[in-house]
Amino acid sequence: MKILSFKVNGQVKFGPKVKREEAVWDVQAIQEQLQVLPSFASTVIEGIAQGFDFVEKMRKLVEAAEKSENATQFKHNFDAIEWLSPIPRTPKNVMCVGRNYKDHAEEMGGEQEQELVLFTKAPTAITADEATISAHANVTSQLDYEGELAVVIGKKGKDIPKSMAYDYVFGYTIGNDITARDLQTKHKQFFLGKSLEGACPLGPYLVTKDEIPNPHNLTVVTKVNDEIRQNGSTKDMLHKVEDLVAYISQHVTLEPGDIILTGTPAGVGKGMNPPTFLKSGDVVKVSIEDIGTLVNRIQ
Amino acid sequence: MKILSFKVNGQVKFGPKVKREEAVWDVQAIQEQLQVLPSFASTVIEGIAQGFDFVEKMRKLVEAAEKSENATQFKHNFDAIEWLSPIPRTPKNVMCVGRNYKDHAEEMGGEQEQELVLFTKAPTAITADEATISAHANVTSQLDYEGELAVVIGKKGKDIPKSMAYDYVFGYTIGNDITARDLQTKHKQFFLGKSLEGACPLGPYLVTKDEIPNPHNLTVVTKVNDEIRQNGSTKDMLHKVEDLVAYISQHVTLEPGDIILTGTPAGVGKGMNPPTFLKSGDVVKVSIEDIGTLVNRIQ
Repeated sequence: MKILSFKVNGQVKFGPKVKREEAVWDVQAIQEQLQVLPSFASTVIEGIAQGFDFVEKMRKLVEAAEKSENATQFKHNFDAIEWLSPIPRTPKNVMCVGRNYKDHAEEMGGEQEQELVLFTKAPTAITADEATISAHANVTSQLDYEGELAVVIGKKGKDIPKSMAYDYVFGYTIGNDITARDLQTKHKQFFLGKSLEGACPLGPYLVTKDEIPNPHNLTVVTKVNDEIRQNGSTKDMLHKVEDLVAYISQHVTLEPGDIILTGTPAGVGKGMNPPTFLKSGDVVKVSIEDIGTLVNRIQ
Repeated sequence: MKILSFKVNGQVKFGPKVKREEAVWDVQAIQEQLQVLPSFASTVIEGIAQGFDFVEKMRKLVEAAEKSENATQFKHNFDAIEWLSPIPRTPKNVMCVGRNYKDHAEEMGGEQEQELVLFTKAPTAITADEATISAHANVTSQLDYEGELAVVIGKKGKDIPKSMAYDYVFGYTIGNDITARDLQTKHKQFFLGKSLEGACPLGPYLVTKDEIPNPHNLTVVTKVNDEIRQNGSTKDMLHKVEDLVAYISQHVTLEPGDIILTGTPAGVGKGMNPPTFLKSGDVVKVSIEDIGTLVNRIQ
């Protein structure tokens, strides 16, 4: 199932994409009007905390809508909604892995780290597919992209064994770890240079894990103005999804709605010769196989 | 006003300390029973987002309780409540400044940073005064303390001018930036080594800013088992509170309930000769003038 979050009539909602249509099911409206279920969920995080019951419930709601007299009243066309990040607000900062692809570590002028490099992005930096992102020219002249597979945690956990890691994964989306390289260097710790407003686009969909049986065989392609800049595969990750979930949870309690960005392959602007940063008017597209394409314009 | 958060009968509550008593006013119970105000606040963050109206409202509620027939029904003795961090859960990770005191930078084997070093602690690491903290012996053998002044943000803001910074500060509390030094070094980025469960004790009180007209003239004393380890003053901070609020908000949107830990003076365990880390049974006390003492035992 492909789940998206959106705003319509000023309300934040979520729902599954309508199959073969550029539209979303308003599952909350279905439940309100048709009273299909004894209980549902008022936010997407509340939903994913219910695990795959949440997906099952949404299936039942969609089924009921399809059988109803006027199914179209429960759909919103994509052009009629404001897109949000599938998780509009994570419960803690977005957690990000640095140098998790060998070729990217090399282009950054160093070795791949054997030990996990983990930093965070403020949740106020989260933005949506198709959102415009400020160039932040007042604080940076080196804005850069990093296309990444994003893991969405579905269940609270601490000290999760590697063999149980996928029990705690709800699904996947695409992240662009937008980075102000000059601030990243200047401040040594990455938080500030990684947390500018809009510097964490996520989306377009949260794809449930049943649709992605192997998250380590997905192409990751990033284009700037339709020029291919990154063309990697998640098979080259050093620390795999199960390693990340297990290792991080040895230190930090994971919670439903938490997001882990799994690192970026080679091809970032800083690694080009000469280094080439994002400028006003640029359009960045990150595509990951089986998930979709995340598009943002720099303004 | 000294505000605390606590749990009683399984409910999370907040309220002001009763003057000259070891007790807290249950302002939510006062409002429920006496209906003093047209509206109040259901969480401490909702409250502080109202600014000093929140303090005024709590004063009115206490006044009404004092005039009522049985004021004691609205008080809980400190020994009857479970203490929580004054902000039980921050909206984003706790933001922390590294090397903000010259003498601490020197003991860590380096220079004071001219540029802000900012890292974060997961909000799942937050714990309360008097809470027991695991030694986390399975992941670290170098657990260390850092006594720090904590700034509590009261108002949403971006690009806050230095001259307006205190408008965005609601008050202060004490923080202990518990750090696994081995993990901090091993992972380069500090997040993991700073985010172990219980590694962010905060409290005991949130002291409103009117009671601390100058946050840069407060002694900061940390004791381990009653031996003085840190004895500094906030006057020695390189980046002052107004610098931090202004600078951070140029990059990251600040929100009510956000906490900034302002750095630690010299005297941490790693800086001792030989380095001396926390062990099971140790009691760490951080005292800051005009705020109180934050006590935690390592288990």
